Amino acid sequence: MNPDAFDALVTNVRGDRLPRVWSLLVTVFGDLAQGDCAAIGSAPLNGIASLIGIRPEAVRVALHRLRKDGWIVSRRTGRRSAYALTPWGRTQSAGASPVIYARDPVESDAWLVLTDPSQPAQEAGQDLFPIASGVALAAAPAREAGELSLRLDCATPVPPWIAEKVCAPETVCQSRILATRLERLCLELVSTDCLSPLQIAVLRVVIVHEWRRIVLKVPRLPDHVFPDGWAGPDCRRHVSDLLSRLPKPRLDALDAVEAGQP
Amino acid sequence: MNPDAFDALVTNVRGDRLPRVWSLLVTVFGDLAQGDCAAIGSAPLNGIASLIGIRPEAVRVALHRLRKDGWIVSRRTGRRSAYALTPWGRTQSAGASPVIYARDPVESDAWLVLTDPSQPAQEAGQDLFPIASGVALAAAPAREAGELSLRLDCATPVPPWIAEKVCAPETVCQSRILATRLERLCLELVSTDCLSPLQIAVLRVVIVHEWRRIVLKVPRLPDHVFPDGWAGPDCRRHVSDLLSRLPKPRLDALDAVEAGQP
Repeated sequence: MNPDAFDALVTNVRGDRLPRVWSLLVTVFGDLAQGDCAAIGSAPLNGIASLIGIRPEAVRVALHRLRKDGWIVSRRTGRRSAYALTPWGRTQSAGASPVIYARDPVESDAWLVLTDPSQPAQEAGQDLFPIASGVALAAAPAREAGELSLRLDCATPVPPWIAEKVCAPETVCQSRILATRLERLCLELVSTDCLSPLQIAVLRVVIVHEWRRIVLKVPRLPDHVFPDGWAGPDCRRHVSDLLSRLPKPRLDALDAVEAGQP
Repeated sequence: MNPDAFDALVTNVRGDRLPRVWSLLVTVFGDLAQGDCAAIGSAPLNGIASLIGIRPEAVRVALHRLRKDGWIVSRRTGRRSAYALTPWGRTQSAGASPVIYARDPVESDAWLVLTDPSQPAQEAGQDLFPIASGVALAAAPAREAGELSLRLDCATPVPPWIAEKVCAPETVCQSRILATRLERLCLELVSTDCLSPLQIAVLRVVIVHEWRRIVLKVPRLPDHVFPDGWAGPDCRRHVSDLLSRLPKPRLDALDAVEAGQP
């Protein structure tokens, strides 16, 4: 696909604001190089970043920080550098993947969990999403003896003040914008034949990245406790459709790429 | 029945402590004279009180206070005084009767009601029994739009910290003591043939009064949200059995009584 037409596709998905480079690279590694022996060369990394609108200097700074933070390691083969996730980075990526790539809702049940307010607050676990003092939502009943768990079925809509704690109005709005953009991409991407492996990688990365920014911000709870207008289900469906139409390119196909030359 | 044997029966039900006279008289009017035209003469009133162990002076003081508080009015016919509930007093009595005289639990459903903690607290209605900030129990789902109501079925036991708010440990203990005493009375009261109308009235009054002190102290919620050991269902059954064996005497049968002469 010619660069201008492709740039329009990318801009459609990511909007006007550039993503934070550090976070975008986490998406790149998580999507394209999560496997045990997977590594990405600096040329394809810069190639992907450049097609999204990010300059090599910003990539270099972000790679340095990711290394310092324990996400990635770098390897040098001859005059080429390659980057791979550390075991810890891989665990982080693998933990988020089921949520990011799910076609169907990850959770179907919601529970209201009540804890004794006179008891010292428990450590806020991943499992409990607090909505008021001593009151939390969870995807499973509580295991502690002193807690009361009540199932919230789909037929009982939660009141807005609860739904808005689950997902802030801005995030609902972002989900609607992304659903619209992804729907447009589904329509515009009549054929993927004309896309290079690098272009496919870039589209995957922007799609996953935009969805990841939303879905990892909200708690792991079923859609029926989200506010009216939450477009998570649409996003999930479009992400899943698009990614199956844009199969992950082989890393060696990307490695042949010179930076800036898709 | 001879006075000593009868006194033992009464003491068995009421225990060692004398009831508060004001409150006992509310029970007397509510049980024996709740009807529109019902009035009790001072002679039978003193007769009932005396068999429970209360002296005429204490009755006089309590009657004065009940009149001042708007519960009763006094009428004078010749040299006799009689007392009757005011319309307001009758409404109070009639409101409590379904709870006091119920053979079966008054409520079968319990609901957990969650209110938005950021909203100003609503007037604490009779209907909502608060157990924590923004969390209440109720016998019916809430009617307000912003509230979330979840049914607490019998199969889900509530944790002790909730049950103990519904009914304090002392009240649970009182219910067990009363259930034991009423059960003993059921066994001891082989026949009611030997009881005078005044003795029947006295037994009814102490039974109703002791149960009323417990049942009006606890919220109108089903037994399954009460603590382990709550003997409300036993008390309800015994009260109901005993009252049906001790039918309400006619007021004119009591009127024939001279104080202290059952």
